[in-house]
Amino acid sequence: MAEGPAAPSRGPRLERVEELRGLRPGDRRVRIVVPREFHRTHGSLVTTEAVLAPSGRIGAVLRGIRAILIGRPLPTDAEQTERVGVLTGLPIFASDNVSSSAYATEEAMRVLALAGVGALSLTMPLTVAIVLVLVVVVTSYLQVIRAYPQGGGSYVVASENLGPLAGLVAAAALLVDYVLTVAVSVAAGVAAISSAFPEVHNERVIIAILLIALLAVGNLRGVREAGILFAGPTYLYVGTILGLIAYGFVRVAIGDVPDPVPPAVPFPVEAVQPLGLILILRAFSSGAVALTGTEAVANGVPAFRPPESRNAGIVLVLMATLFGSLFLAISFLATTIGVRPDASETQTVLSLVARSIVGDGWYFYLVQATTAIILILAANTAFAGFPRLASIMAVDRFMPRQFAQRGERLAFSTGIIALAGVSAILVAAFQGSVTGLIPLYTVGVFLAFTLSQAGMVRKWTRERRPGWRSSALINAAGGTVTGVVALVVGVAKFQLGAWLVIAIMPVLVVLLYAIHRHYRSLEDVLLVPSSQALALAAVRPRVIVPISRLDRAAIRALAIARGVSDDIVAVHVSFDEEGARAFTQRWAEVVGGAVPLETIISPFRTVIAALTRYIDAIDAGDPARPIVVVLSEFVPRHWWEAVLHNQTALLLKLRLFLRRNTAVMDVPYHLDSGRPSGDDPSA
Amino acid sequence: MAEGPAAPSRGPRLERVEELRGLRPGDRRVRIVVPREFHRTHGSLVTTEAVLAPSGRIGAVLRGIRAILIGRPLPTDAEQTERVGVLTGLPIFASDNVSSSAYATEEAMRVLALAGVGALSLTMPLTVAIVLVLVVVVTSYLQVIRAYPQGGGSYVVASENLGPLAGLVAAAALLVDYVLTVAVSVAAGVAAISSAFPEVHNERVIIAILLIALLAVGNLRGVREAGILFAGPTYLYVGTILGLIAYGFVRVAIGDVPDPVPPAVPFPVEAVQPLGLILILRAFSSGAVALTGTEAVANGVPAFRPPESRNAGIVLVLMATLFGSLFLAISFLATTIGVRPDASETQTVLSLVARSIVGDGWYFYLVQATTAIILILAANTAFAGFPRLASIMAVDRFMPRQFAQRGERLAFSTGIIALAGVSAILVAAFQGSVTGLIPLYTVGVFLAFTLSQAGMVRKWTRERRPGWRSSALINAAGGTVTGVVALVVGVAKFQLGAWLVIAIMPVLVVLLYAIHRHYRSLEDVLLVPSSQALALAAVRPRVIVPISRLDRAAIRALAIARGVSDDIVAVHVSFDEEGARAFTQRWAEVVGGAVPLETIISPFRTVIAALTRYIDAIDAGDPARPIVVVLSEFVPRHWWEAVLHNQTALLLKLRLFLRRNTAVMDVPYHLDSGRPSGDDPSA
Repeated sequence: MAEGPAAPSRGPRLERVEELRGLRPGDRRVRIVVPREFHRTHGSLVTTEAVLAPSGRIGAVLRGIRAILIGRPLPTDAEQTERVGVLTGLPIFASDNVSSSAYATEEAMRVLALAGVGALSLTMPLTVAIVLVLVVVVTSYLQVIRAYPQGGGSYVVASENLGPLAGLVAAAALLVDYVLTVAVSVAAGVAAISSAFPEVHNERVIIAILLIALLAVGNLRGVREAGILFAGPTYLYVGTILGLIAYGFVRVAIGDVPDPVPPAVPFPVEAVQPLGLILILRAFSSGAVALTGTEAVANGVPAFRPPESRNAGIVLVLMATLFGSLFLAISFLATTIGVRPDASETQTVLSLVARSIVGDGWYFYLVQATTAIILILAANTAFAGFPRLASIMAVDRFMPRQFAQRGERLAFSTGIIALAGVSAILVAAFQGSVTGLIPLYTVGVFLAFTLSQAGMVRKWTRERRPGWRSSALINAAGGTVTGVVALVVGVAKFQLGAWLVIAIMPVLVVLLYAIHRHYRSLEDVLLVPSSQALALAAVRPRVIVPISRLDRAAIRALAIARGVSDDIVAVHVSFDEEGARAFTQRWAEVVGGAVPLETIISPFRTVIAALTRYIDAIDAGDPARPIVVVLSEFVPRHWWEAVLHNQTALLLKLRLFLRRNTAVMDVPYHLDSGRPSGDDPSA
Repeated sequence: MAEGPAAPSRGPRLERVEELRGLRPGDRRVRIVVPREFHRTHGSLVTTEAVLAPSGRIGAVLRGIRAILIGRPLPTDAEQTERVGVLTGLPIFASDNVSSSAYATEEAMRVLALAGVGALSLTMPLTVAIVLVLVVVVTSYLQVIRAYPQGGGSYVVASENLGPLAGLVAAAALLVDYVLTVAVSVAAGVAAISSAFPEVHNERVIIAILLIALLAVGNLRGVREAGILFAGPTYLYVGTILGLIAYGFVRVAIGDVPDPVPPAVPFPVEAVQPLGLILILRAFSSGAVALTGTEAVANGVPAFRPPESRNAGIVLVLMATLFGSLFLAISFLATTIGVRPDASETQTVLSLVARSIVGDGWYFYLVQATTAIILILAANTAFAGFPRLASIMAVDRFMPRQFAQRGERLAFSTGIIALAGVSAILVAAFQGSVTGLIPLYTVGVFLAFTLSQAGMVRKWTRERRPGWRSSALINAAGGTVTGVVALVVGVAKFQLGAWLVIAIMPVLVVLLYAIHRHYRSLEDVLLVPSSQALALAAVRPRVIVPISRLDRAAIRALAIARGVSDDIVAVHVSFDEEGARAFTQRWAEVVGGAVPLETIISPFRTVIAALTRYIDAIDAGDPARPIVVVLSEFVPRHWWEAVLHNQTALLLKLRLFLRRNTAVMDVPYHLDSGRPSGDDPSA
């Protein structure tokens, strides 16, 4: 803290001396010493990486930690090379989707089992139905990607075609759902870990928060590095499950169908509920979590290497193919072998299938371990989706503008940190309970998806380009299915917690709109129309220098104040007449008549109130001219010394910040200052 | 927050218009509108109470709460009328002392009982001995008061006569002991309350902290009001006990000696420890808590009405007489009736005496209730002593200077708040346990007292004024007794916790000395010798105006910057070439050539690093002249809107504060600003 930025006059850092163009125009040209950190291009100074060199020890340590955690800063023009291709893009955007293959079959079977064991025979037809709907959904999203290559998804599509309110509803739904994706995925992953190692159960919230922090740091490294980092585990899961499936298929093909491992607690044989449309739709909705990943791809089109839309489309198709194959294969093996879901939830259908096929050996544990990892990595898709959506919204002024700024590694750091923070709070609030979080989940994405499909239908019917009918039909089909699912999920989960999400959404929409209104109103007030040429007048301020003690710091402030204006007065506040008299006398000795002095006696010992009222008095005398208050501030050698000094200057600054027509000039006085002429005008 | 200070131009607040003497000397005289809040005396502006009128709603609410809690602010010249006489001074300074009458007999008996029940017959002789020693102590302190009418006590006496180190040791001992007095008194009071109402036992820390806050608020009202506030309960206790004693004496005199109420758990009849000097000294030390109050009177002499020393002396004598009489009488009644201490500590000796004399009726409960209150009020003496000692030390630069400033009610508010804060933390750390805190208590005061007596002896032997021999003898006697007690208490309580106090004291002494050294070294660097007449040069600064967006706030900053210097350059940081080009073009349209513009392209998207390096470059070109960085800051309508704006300006200010040779000028732009000419120079 004590060290200021290194003085550039130390030897070899100077590169050249140039005249600063224009500084003090028409008078004389001022020398500027351009250090190594800059070079000139087309008249602009361009900073090099050297500008990031830390100043001081604490700065160096922080920079070192940052470099280890997230890597060296990247220049803006590296954005192109930081984009992802198909192979690194797939694990980022597909992890949520692919991870659902670990439980899609189970969720479907679990719902069907309520209609009696006999209904389990519907597992395979239901799987095929879900996959078919997914095909419709993916096809309709391929159209979105092609239509919105700048990155879109539900928010953009709904805003453009159905109006800003629809866009904001879709955005609010998605933002909530991304947060829930992180919370649910990580909680589920930690639950998997703690069922293997029960001793960590009490630390599950801490572990979950650490995992969220890990994901956040990985994503802060930039989208490409995050893809590379998280690609391994994703592909490992896919490879492991494909191996399991292949071996299972071979055993079925050669007639060696494995015996099913029985569940710990089987479902009752008789029906608990009738098998109706609602039950089937609920089963469908459980398997349709794939949609979150689809949204993320649509938002993330600009993260792909050119041709962006094409690469994004390939990832979308690959993702759907991968999920569809795994889902179909697991459902097929489960029903062929005759595995039944476990009512006690101590074993998953996937683990029962795996144990049936490969037994209790190492491969079974590999399946379990990679499954736990893929469940956690599902959160990664949200880390790809949320910051991009937030950045698009920030450009539209619906989110604080920080969300639109790229961080050191060109990732949207604010969005990543916000997502990590909110989801960590959520996990902590729900004590890491998956059961508590699940009902809140997936309500939003179905709503957003329905709005985006409706928007697309509107777009086609309005534009009526060639082939619009079939395009509109595809989107209408997708929208209808997800609309029905949104309704079913909302109703089914309402009492379990979905009401919370439904209640938060309008609040969020109002908040987003309030942010927008604030920025807009600010612009109306502040913006100078480009047509308007301003006659920039030089406004001569009146200068007031409050002085508590006539020391070197005060003398320096007075010297600068005099250089700034000749319309200047020093003010001293005393608590009694004696003090005022003594100060006046000392002033006459040290400063003389160079600067006029006003003394104020404050019998109530309030310095700030007396000074502000005095400034009011000066101001009232000539309200047209601004006032500059010059404060001398002493910079302690060590930060802890600051407590030994009066905080009057700080409080005065805060007070004057809220005062119209008044600027504050801070003149810091450094104890360890080595410059003779600049620091001690008395020399 | 949104409201600035009320504009003084609103109608009736103006009183007169005067020319400001000297502002812009030799050029023209500037009108100053002097509002009602000021009047002029001997050339100085004097503020009236109107200056304290709050600005804005939040200010008014805060001011209202303060007025209710601590009263209207008092002017400095009210200090005389705020002093206390004998009747209000007595309860403030004597409460600690008088409260010890509630347990002095008991403590003595409890120690004697260890030597067997037979040793209890020594209670009365021991009481007489303690009272005699107290007479010596009070007599020697009367000499201190007469010698140091400006307020003294151990710190001043030891510093002046034995050197600063002895003074600091005494001060450290006293500061620690005052904190412990508050903690022990309040904890004991709460223990008394919770033994009557066991259901509050779990809330004892909260209750203790509330009581400390209550005492602090009472003392913040000023010493006189605190005296009035707390006089009632103190005199009520004294009256109640005197009534009890009178009735007891009457019964004894007429031969109707009451039967003793037996203790719940009697002490063993046989001796547990031999009756030696150590035991008697320990018994003595338990009864000698009176000394804390004596110190407080010595520190607080200036709080008395003139003649200060005389009034303080009367209070000291009255206090000793009161305590001595109560102590002697209670010991007499206890031994005459034959009350024995309770080994289980469920009943005090005083309550056993009271029940023996008046039975279980209302008077008994009155005794209990007033005892609980006086135990808590004992803390009040520390609230009188600590802030005064701290203020004397702050004047000597051994404490932060805030401790020397009088608050709104002329009390030393910082000391009061510090004492309340530290003792509250202590009570919380010890979970409100009296047993845990007692061993830490009274070690310090005996040490301080011994040092002060040694200092007095030194003073008399050095000055050799008439009668110095008897004065020296009195102080030597007092010092010897307390020295021995200090040693005994220190050894006896060392393992029980006194080591903590003994360990903290050197740390505290070093800290106090470090504070002193800091202020001294600062003065050496900063102070301008009064002999030195400074040739105050006007230092022309170079002005740099960083501009992120060319809006009205920026235009205003540019206008003021131009009024301040013609040596000015505007700097814009872009993240890419395109942005720099666009800004340059817009600048040409809006500002034109009036202010030269430098554009910096920062490919690593760091604004602050780029700006500070650029300032380095300007600085290196002409290191002799200071730099003023003009920042336009937008003042949001509501504080929560601040999160929507980049904190770049704030970070830049922090960074530049540590930079040598650089002043920062903040030009706030108010959205709701109604002044045309001051705010919009483009008009």
